[in-house]
Amino acid sequence: MSNGKHRLDEKASGVYIIAATPFGDDGELDLYSVDSLTDFYLEKGVTGFTILGMMGEAPKLSEAETTTVMERILKRVNGRAPVVVGVSHSSNRHVHRLSNEAMSLGAAGVMVAPAPNLKTDEQVHGYYAAIADLLGKDIPICLQDFPQATAVHTSVSVIHRLIDEFPQIVMLKHEDFPGMRKLSRIRKESEEEGRRRISILVGNGGLFLPQEMLRGADGAMTGFAYPEMLVQVCKLFADGKPEEAENLFNIYLPLLRHEFQYGIGLALRKETLRRRGAIRSAFVRKPGPVLDATDQAELTRLIARQDAALT
Amino acid sequence: MSNGKHRLDEKASGVYIIAATPFGDDGELDLYSVDSLTDFYLEKGVTGFTILGMMGEAPKLSEAETTTVMERILKRVNGRAPVVVGVSHSSNRHVHRLSNEAMSLGAAGVMVAPAPNLKTDEQVHGYYAAIADLLGKDIPICLQDFPQATAVHTSVSVIHRLIDEFPQIVMLKHEDFPGMRKLSRIRKESEEEGRRRISILVGNGGLFLPQEMLRGADGAMTGFAYPEMLVQVCKLFADGKPEEAENLFNIYLPLLRHEFQYGIGLALRKETLRRRGAIRSAFVRKPGPVLDATDQAELTRLIARQDAALT
Amino acid sequence: MSNGKHRLDEKASGVYIIAATPFGDDGELDLYSVDSLTDFYLEKGVTGFTILGMMGEAPKLSEAETTTVMERILKRVNGRAPVVVGVSHSSNRHVHRLSNEAMSLGAAGVMVAPAPNLKTDEQVHGYYAAIADLLGKDIPICLQDFPQATAVHTSVSVIHRLIDEFPQIVMLKHEDFPGMRKLSRIRKESEEEGRRRISILVGNGGLFLPQEMLRGADGAMTGFAYPEMLVQVCKLFADGKPEEAENLFNIYLPLLRHEFQYGIGLALRKETLRRRGAIRSAFVRKPGPVLDATDQAELTRLIARQDAALT
Amino acid sequence: MSNGKHRLDEKASGVYIIAATPFGDDGELDLYSVDSLTDFYLEKGVTGFTILGMMGEAPKLSEAETTTVMERILKRVNGRAPVVVGVSHSSNRHVHRLSNEAMSLGAAGVMVAPAPNLKTDEQVHGYYAAIADLLGKDIPICLQDFPQATAVHTSVSVIHRLIDEFPQIVMLKHEDFPGMRKLSRIRKESEEEGRRRISILVGNGGLFLPQEMLRGADGAMTGFAYPEMLVQVCKLFADGKPEEAENLFNIYLPLLRHEFQYGIGLALRKETLRRRGAIRSAFVRKPGPVLDATDQAELTRLIARQDAALT
Repeated sequence: MSNGKHRLDEKASGVYIIAATPFGDDGELDLYSVDSLTDFYLEKGVTGFTILGMMGEAPKLSEAETTTVMERILKRVNGRAPVVVGVSHSSNRHVHRLSNEAMSLGAAGVMVAPAPNLKTDEQVHGYYAAIADLLGKDIPICLQDFPQATAVHTSVSVIHRLIDEFPQIVMLKHEDFPGMRKLSRIRKESEEEGRRRISILVGNGGLFLPQEMLRGADGAMTGFAYPEMLVQVCKLFADGKPEEAENLFNIYLPLLRHEFQYGIGLALRKETLRRRGAIRSAFVRKPGPVLDATDQAELTRLIARQDAALT
Repeated sequence: MSNGKHRLDEKASGVYIIAATPFGDDGELDLYSVDSLTDFYLEKGVTGFTILGMMGEAPKLSEAETTTVMERILKRVNGRAPVVVGVSHSSNRHVHRLSNEAMSLGAAGVMVAPAPNLKTDEQVHGYYAAIADLLGKDIPICLQDFPQATAVHTSVSVIHRLIDEFPQIVMLKHEDFPGMRKLSRIRKESEEEGRRRISILVGNGGLFLPQEMLRGADGAMTGFAYPEMLVQVCKLFADGKPEEAENLFNIYLPLLRHEFQYGIGLALRKETLRRRGAIRSAFVRKPGPVLDATDQAELTRLIARQDAALT
Repeated sequence: MSNGKHRLDEKASGVYIIAATPFGDDGELDLYSVDSLTDFYLEKGVTGFTILGMMGEAPKLSEAETTTVMERILKRVNGRAPVVVGVSHSSNRHVHRLSNEAMSLGAAGVMVAPAPNLKTDEQVHGYYAAIADLLGKDIPICLQDFPQATAVHTSVSVIHRLIDEFPQIVMLKHEDFPGMRKLSRIRKESEEEGRRRISILVGNGGLFLPQEMLRGADGAMTGFAYPEMLVQVCKLFADGKPEEAENLFNIYLPLLRHEFQYGIGLALRKETLRRRGAIRSAFVRKPGPVLDATDQAELTRLIARQDAALT
Repeated sequence: MSNGKHRLDEKASGVYIIAATPFGDDGELDLYSVDSLTDFYLEKGVTGFTILGMMGEAPKLSEAETTTVMERILKRVNGRAPVVVGVSHSSNRHVHRLSNEAMSLGAAGVMVAPAPNLKTDEQVHGYYAAIADLLGKDIPICLQDFPQATAVHTSVSVIHRLIDEFPQIVMLKHEDFPGMRKLSRIRKESEEEGRRRISILVGNGGLFLPQEMLRGADGAMTGFAYPEMLVQVCKLFADGKPEEAENLFNIYLPLLRHEFQYGIGLALRKETLRRRGAIRSAFVRKPGPVLDATDQAELTRLIARQDAALT
C-alpha cells in the first residue's frame, strides 16, 4: 500500500522528527514553508518524519488541509526518508480512513494514540486490538504512549500483549513521564521472554534522550528545533560513544528544556524554526500560545548562550 | 444569516431536544432514520432541536457527514422549530466555519463548549470572548457549561461578564453537576444587578429538572428517549403546576436515571429510540458502548415497569 | 483480633450503613450524637456499619478523634452488628496501624481504597497486595472501588486476582460509575471459573440499587438518610420480591437522587438526619458545603413530597 | 508567636531548601539523620528551610512524628535560619492547629497549598481567605501554587486580591508549570498597580531557575540535592552576574533535570543525599518509589559526569 521504498519496521532507529505544520500570519496553511521546513529537516540529517502529530496541530486542520499537508510533505520528501503519519482520532472509522489515505500517498506507517477515557489494561488493549484489526497487517503501526496528553496509561503488559498479537505493531513512541523504568522493563522482559523486539523512539522533547538511549531506545521522535543535535547524538550512541553524545546533548539541554514547556513550547519551537529560516511565520492556530516581548527576549538570550557554548 | 423565522434569543424556553445521530448497523449515516427521528421529536412536541452535540456523536462524523446531517434535519424540520447546532471544536477557525455553515442553512443559533485546558476565570472568559468576537453579533450563542465532559469550569462571574459584554450570548446550557446553586446564583445576581436575563435550559439528562425549574430554569436541553415527558413537565411548570409536573416526572425518573449513566447511557438511549420506532438501528460508532443481553433485559424490564406505572 | 462475635466474611449481605460523623455547631465531635445516630441506624434495622469512610469525614478527624469515634461507636453497638472501619490512607504504615487499632477495638473488618496515582492494573494489584500482606490473614478486607473519588480504576481482572491470592479479601464495595456491567462480569466470571464468591455491597448513594441487586449484589453500603428503605428493599430482594422492592425504592428515588449530588450531598444527608432527630447538628467540617435558604426549602419540599407518597 | 528572631516577610530571598524527612531502613524516623541533614543544609549555605512539604513526605507522618520533626529541626537550626512549615491539609481545623504549633515552636511562617476540588477563582480565593482569617495576622503565610500536584489553579488575579486583602500573605512558592509568564505578570501588574511586592521563590525542582530569576523571582524553594549550587546561583544573580549564574546552573542541569522526575525524583534525591553523607538511609515510605540497579547505575554515572564537569 505504501510506496514500497519505505515501510516502517522494527529496525527503525535514529531521528524521526515531529514536524511542525507551518501557517501564515493569517492562519492559512503556508505550503511554501511546508516545503522549506521539509528541506530543513532533511538537511539536518533526520532519518524520518512524523507528521500530523499533536505538535503538528493536526486537530486544528480541516480534512482537506490534512490531505494537503500529507501530499505536500510526501511529495517533497520524495522517497528520501520514511514518513509516519499521526492518525489518532476519537472515531475508529476516521483512523481507518486516514490511515488508508496516508498509506496510499506513500507513508511508511501510522502513529496511533489511544482514544480518551480508557481506564484499565483490558480497555487499552481492546482499543488498540480493534484498531490493529481494522487497519490490517499491511499498515505498520507506531503506538504513541503519551499519558500526559491522553490521560490513558498503557502498561508494559499491554504493550507486550499487543506485540505478541499484532505483527504490524512495530514501533513505540515512548513518552510516558517519568518513564525510564518502563522503557527498561520492556527491553528486559522482551529479551527474557523471547519476544519480538520492536523499535522504541523517545519523545517528551528528548529531555532524557541520553539516559533513554542507554536503556535501550533506538532513537528520538521529537521536534526540537535543532534536529542536527538529535541526529548527531543518536549517531554517537550508535557509534558507541555515549559520553561524547551526552556532552553534545548537554550543550543544547538548556534550550531543549525551555522548549519542553507544555503549551508555550510549541510557540517557542515554531519561533526558533522561523529564526533559523525554516519557516516564514511562527503562527500557532487559535486557541494557542503567543509569545510576548519577554518570551522573545528570553528565547533570544538562550539561543545566544547556546551559540556561544557551541563555538 | 439564519432563515429569519427562528433565531435563538433570551426568551427561549421549553424542550430543546438533544438529537441523536442515527447510523445503520454498518456504521453509515442512516438518513431515513434522521428523518424519522426528526418527525418523532416533532410529534412528541419538542420546542426546538440541538443537533451535533456530544450525545449526537458529532466528533465521530466526517465534515461531509456533518454538513449532511445539518442539511437533512433543517430541511425536515422545515421551519417548524428552531435548531441549535453544536459547533464545539479545538480550533476556533473550525468553530467559525461550522457556525457560518449552520446559520446559512437556517440554524437558529450555535452551542459552544469551551476548548480543553482552560484553567482560570480569565482563560475561560478569554476563550469565549474570542469566539464571540469571531462569530460576531449576528450568530446567537448558547454556552454549554458541562465540566464533567470538558474539565473546564465556567464560574458565575465569567458567565455574568460574558452576558454583559456580548449580546449575542442568549442562552446557557446548564449541566454543571452539582450545579443547582449555580443556577440560583445566576438568576439572583442577574436580577439584583439589573443584568440581561438569558435563557437557561438544563442538561445532565434532566436528572434534576423539577428542582431546576423551581430555581429559575426555562426548560430542558437533553435527549431523554421520552421527550413527551420533558415537554409535558415544562408545560406544567409554565402553567404553574409544579406538583403535577414533578409527579409526572417521577414516574419516568427510574428510566431517566438509568439513561443518565455516562458512556453506556447513549447506547441505552438509542436502543430505546429504536424500540419506540424512531430509528432503525441503535448503532453507536466505535469506540463506543454496545449493550449485552443483560443490559437489554434490564432495559426491557425498566420500560415495562414504566409502562405499567403510566397506566 | 476482633471480638469474635462479628468478623466480616464472604456471606455478608444486607445494609452496611455508611455512618456520618456528627459534629456540634462549633465543629467539635458531638459524642452525644454519635450515640443517638448509632441508635437511629440500629433502630432502622441496618445489618452493619461502615464508619470513618469518605462521607464520615475521616480525613478531617485528628488521630485522637478517630480513635474516639471508633471506640464510641463500637461500644454503643455493643456487638449487635458488625462494624467495618475505613482505613484508607496515603501511607501503608498508617493503614496498618489504624487497622490493628480497629480490630483490637472489636471491628469486624476494614475497608481500603487505593492510594492515589495508581495507573495500571499491575500498580493497583501491587498496592492491594502490599496492603493485604501487611495486614495479614486475620484482618478481613473490603475493597472500596470508587474511581470518581480516587481516580484509580480497579479492573475486573485485578479484583479476581486479588480474590484468588488473598482469602482475607471478602468484600467489594462497588461504586464504580457506570459500573453495572462490571458487577455482572465479576459474578459471571467468578462462577464460570470456580472462584470464591465474595460479598458485593453497592455504593453510589444506592442510585442503582434494584438493578444491582438483580445483577448479583448482596446489599448496599451507602448512607442514605432513610436507611429503613434500604433495609426493606434488601429484605424484599432476599425474599424474592424484586418488583415490590423496586416499587418501594422508587418512592424514595427523588430524594435519594437529590442526596447523590457530590459535595453538597453530605450536607443534605446530615441535615436530613438532623431533621429526623438522629443528630443534633448538621455541621460539616471546613472546607465543606453549607446549605442556604433555597437548599433548605428545596429539601423541605422533597421530604414533604416523599412523606405524602408514603401515606 | 514565633521566636521573634525570624519571621517570614516580603523581603525573603535566597534559597529556602525543601527539606527531606529521613527515615531508617525500617521506615522509622531517623532523628540522627534529621540533625545531620539540617547541618548539611546549613553548611551548604541555605538561607532558610521549608519542612514538612510534599517532598518531605508530610502526609505519611503521624501527628506525633510531625511534631517531633518540627521540634528537632527547629532546635537544631537554633535560630540560625528561618524555618517555614508546610501545613496543608484537607481540614481547616488541622491547618489551624498545626500552624499554631509550628509558630509556638519557633517557625518563621507556614506554607499552605489549596484543598482539592477548588475549581473557580472565587472558590480558590474563598479557600485562602478562610485560612488567612483563621490563622490571623500574626502568622506569615506562603501560598504554594503547585497545580500539577493539587489540580487547583490559582490565577494571577486571585493572587493579587489575596495580597491586597491579607498582609500576612508575604510569599508565593511559584511552581505552576509552565508558569514563567505568570511570574512576570504578577511582578508587572503589581508594580503598575502599586501593589505590595511579596517574595516569590520558585519550585519545580529549580528547572527554570535562571529564567525565573530574570523574570523577578527572589530565589528558590526546592530540594535539589546540591543546595550549594542553588545558593551560589542566587548569590550571583543578587550580585548582578546572571551569565555566571547560569553557567554554573547549567553544569548541574543534567542531574537537576533527572531529579525533576515526579515520583521517582524523591527516591533519587534521597539517595543522592545519602551518598553525600547527609542522611544514613534513602528509604521512602510506602507506597513509594524504590531505585533498582539500573536506576542506581544511572545516578552514579550522572553524578560522575557532574563531578568531572566541575573540575
